[in-house]
Amino acid sequence: MSPDSNRLHKLDELFDDEIPAILVSQIANVRYLLNKPTMFDPDFGGILLVAPDVAIFMVDSRYLAQTKEADLACEIRLISESPWATAGEAIEGAKLKRVGFEAGDVSVSQWEELKTHTTAELRPAKNFVERPRLIKEPIEIDHLTKAAAIGDDVLSETLKIIRPGLREADIAAEIDYLMKKAGARRPSFDTIVAGGPNSAFPHAGAGQRRVQAGDFIKLDFGAVYLGYHSDMTRTVVLGPANVRHRQVYEAVARGQQLVLDQLRPGMTGAEADAIARDFFKSIGMGDRFGHNLGHGLGLQVHEGPSLGWKSKKVLEEGMVFTVEPGLYFPGFGGVRIEDAVVMRENGVEILTRSPKELIKIV
Amino acid sequence: MSPDSNRLHKLDELFDDEIPAILVSQIANVRYLLNKPTMFDPDFGGILLVAPDVAIFMVDSRYLAQTKEADLACEIRLISESPWATAGEAIEGAKLKRVGFEAGDVSVSQWEELKTHTTAELRPAKNFVERPRLIKEPIEIDHLTKAAAIGDDVLSETLKIIRPGLREADIAAEIDYLMKKAGARRPSFDTIVAGGPNSAFPHAGAGQRRVQAGDFIKLDFGAVYLGYHSDMTRTVVLGPANVRHRQVYEAVARGQQLVLDQLRPGMTGAEADAIARDFFKSIGMGDRFGHNLGHGLGLQVHEGPSLGWKSKKVLEEGMVFTVEPGLYFPGFGGVRIEDAVVMRENGVEILTRSPKELIKIV
Repeated sequence: MSPDSNRLHKLDELFDDEIPAILVSQIANVRYLLNKPTMFDPDFGGILLVAPDVAIFMVDSRYLAQTKEADLACEIRLISESPWATAGEAIEGAKLKRVGFEAGDVSVSQWEELKTHTTAELRPAKNFVERPRLIKEPIEIDHLTKAAAIGDDVLSETLKIIRPGLREADIAAEIDYLMKKAGARRPSFDTIVAGGPNSAFPHAGAGQRRVQAGDFIKLDFGAVYLGYHSDMTRTVVLGPANVRHRQVYEAVARGQQLVLDQLRPGMTGAEADAIARDFFKSIGMGDRFGHNLGHGLGLQVHEGPSLGWKSKKVLEEGMVFTVEPGLYFPGFGGVRIEDAVVMRENGVEILTRSPKELIKIV
Repeated sequence: MSPDSNRLHKLDELFDDEIPAILVSQIANVRYLLNKPTMFDPDFGGILLVAPDVAIFMVDSRYLAQTKEADLACEIRLISESPWATAGEAIEGAKLKRVGFEAGDVSVSQWEELKTHTTAELRPAKNFVERPRLIKEPIEIDHLTKAAAIGDDVLSETLKIIRPGLREADIAAEIDYLMKKAGARRPSFDTIVAGGPNSAFPHAGAGQRRVQAGDFIKLDFGAVYLGYHSDMTRTVVLGPANVRHRQVYEAVARGQQLVLDQLRPGMTGAEADAIARDFFKSIGMGDRFGHNLGHGLGLQVHEGPSLGWKSKKVLEEGMVFTVEPGLYFPGFGGVRIEDAVVMRENGVEILTRSPKELIKIV
């Protein structure tokens, strides 16, 4: 197979009597299977029908020319009236009696429409294409590494311009601009710059508040590079750090380092999460860590595996995910430190290279 | 009612025996009904249950504190295990026998889960909350006007920096930066900067190609301001314009002006679309205009009404939408001119103020 080949063959070992064929509509799954991580807009509505001897890619007229040029090694069909009507007709044409569909992605309306165009039995499939996506190929790890490096470079540049009086939104605008100039297609998500009391909200945005001396400033952002997402968080102090700043920061840094040191293939997401959670409990801060430890990174900014207290998923070599403990104190502020890592044979390789000692901007 | 009140009362006249209650999960609809256009992240998973005497808003722990502070005039409930389990329990608690759900937004998996938590009859509802959203309130038109003005200002600044040798992606990065500095929360969509042959693709992105003399450069972008989206396109020529540049540009400009002059309340989307489409046919360019004439703008960048050749929707006073005809010539380039307009009693008011004569950057 050439490096440009699609990945449809990865489904061969997954097909069984339950799901002997699959209709793939989730865009990251389509991009993955076709091995075209940057192809198609987010509002793209193409559908891929795959069975052991079937590979039909249905696209609307806006994308027909570029799809035909792309050497996808599957049959290309034009969507006429609606994607789901065309998909139903493709199922009929291929004489498939049972077909899986992505029940977490397909809306009830789409499913109702599909049903009127095929007599095949439609089976809800969950995490079907997502399974092979969990283990990253070397080329995917290369892209994720480069995406993380863009984040590191941009953080370093951003720290040079932060000063009292800047609005959070202004700092976020600089981060997004620098990421794009460094080759990112777009930010992985709405960049978070949360200063002072705002840093106590895990899901703050970037608002009109001006940062000031004494603030924790939480910077959480990522770059999309060739379709792959980075995600990192650093929390810095503006001005001299006081005892409380140091105490909270050191607790988070130590909790994260414990996880990074102990992560091994074979551990579950819940076991990884417990390393940080138990440590925070042991120092009386357990109730200040309310969110999960981490999440997978790849063609989506949130994908498998999940690292949370309920997560039974086993962490395996080649998985890429974040490790991002945080402690939040309403009214004062919060600290989160987030790295992206790839699981290797004997532990994790850390993709995020930015320093982790407490940075004071003076 | 105070200006901060929610808009739940707008559903009163829509409830009937078919849909006597509704479960609202689509985020723009939630924001609209609660009158909180910037509240909640895109990955927010809250659900609103509304019936004539019921208003329950279910949120997860990440959003509980800010939701309680927000004075939403409805009961707030914490999502425990899953949003759909909590929603099912809320339906049971309110003793509702029949409830509509947003079938175009709810996935088959979510619907299956909801069904296990309620015995109520679940009715697919399409375009329920979207109906009142079609007619904009004055405050919404104010926000859309300001969002359009950000676009105009940013275009004017951007034209000053475009020169041969700049990459499309660099120009897009400048546009996005300038929008954020001007108060935009984020771009309305991935900014399009398409030069030369790329301008012939209606859905081009912003790539690594360097713009050069003789290029049409298509700039299609928008700003999200206080939750409301702008969307505009201008196409400029780098260097002196030749006869073909002028011919194509004038055709699009004339087609657009015909529409803007003739739009009136009571016309359907298809009738509006036909004004431009028939004109292009009359000059032998009918096959070069492949997409719809326009789409609604508001809390989403694409919403109702649709202005396309199949669109039966009647255009009414207070609707806000784009008028964006284009002509595309593979290998040479394409031109699109897009304005946002609000329908008034006697015709449209144009929100986009940027000039429409052919701009030559020399």
